[in-house]
Amino acid sequence: MTFDHEHFMEMAIEEGIKGGKEGNSPVGSVIVRDGKVIARGHNLVTSTVDVTAHAETVALRNAGPATGTVELPGATLYTTFEPCPMCTGAIVAARIGTVVLGGRNRPAGTTYGDYTIERLIDMVGFSDRLNVVTGILQEHGETIRNDWLKQRGLA
Amino acid sequence: MTFDHEHFMEMAIEEGIKGGKEGNSPVGSVIVRDGKVIARGHNLVTSTVDVTAHAETVALRNAGPATGTVELPGATLYTTFEPCPMCTGAIVAARIGTVVLGGRNRPAGTTYGDYTIERLIDMVGFSDRLNVVTGILQEHGETIRNDWLKQRGLA
Repeated sequence: MTFDHEHFMEMAIEEGIKGGKEGNSPVGSVIVRDGKVIARGHNLVTSTVDVTAHAETVALRNAGPATGTVELPGATLYTTFEPCPMCTGAIVAARIGTVVLGGRNRPAGTTYGDYTIERLIDMVGFSDRLNVVTGILQEHGETIRNDWLKQRGLA
Repeated sequence: MTFDHEHFMEMAIEEGIKGGKEGNSPVGSVIVRDGKVIARGHNLVTSTVDVTAHAETVALRNAGPATGTVELPGATLYTTFEPCPMCTGAIVAARIGTVVLGGRNRPAGTTYGDYTIERLIDMVGFSDRLNVVTGILQEHGETIRNDWLKQRGLA
């Protein structure tokens, strides 16, 4: 099966914009299995006062009741911005097969030291179980999020 | 202020046992600030079909509405078992000041490659912002969780 990464990333961007309208970081995520969207999520940190409610983690939270299972091997998670360490850990815990990224984090050292999604996946021993696809609508993902950070004096 | 780590770890163990009675991994967590418990959480993965509902992440989720803020500098998070990569990422995101561990993961290589909480904290550049205290009721924490894994043929 071929995936249209840009198509699903556009859906993730729309999802992120919903979160932004509620005052959250405008990051969105969709989870796809067998060509169908099985869950969506957007950042809800500010609107629900929940530090764990990043887009990817929310999408994974929603995927359980939607599928009846907590592990999703073979599924692909799209996210408009590089997952933080928590979200990468959640993606690993869910046994997601592929993660597709939009924007990348600002230069190393500014937020999370030497962290990159690839380095954490390597540390936890999942490099051969979790495929990372980068560069899908990357500039779009970075522009939306960085504008939001700038508006708040965070970048 | 001095903290009685064993006292709060015993509360975390009680919390974990609640989760175990609901069919979940019997890990529990409490978050303490200024000597008072501000949030609790136990693993809810199985009972709520939520792969992200580990004890530490649930406690952090509960802490937001309880305190009105998503960042908890100066707070201490107790957990009966070494946090997984997701939970360590959540603890970092919440700017928790100290994490106190009970049990430690099985030998490196069996679950998450070379991961330890200390190594991830180092990667993300939080070694001087997040203090790790180990060895508090460690054997108790390991026995409860390892018995649960054995019962399920997972260890």
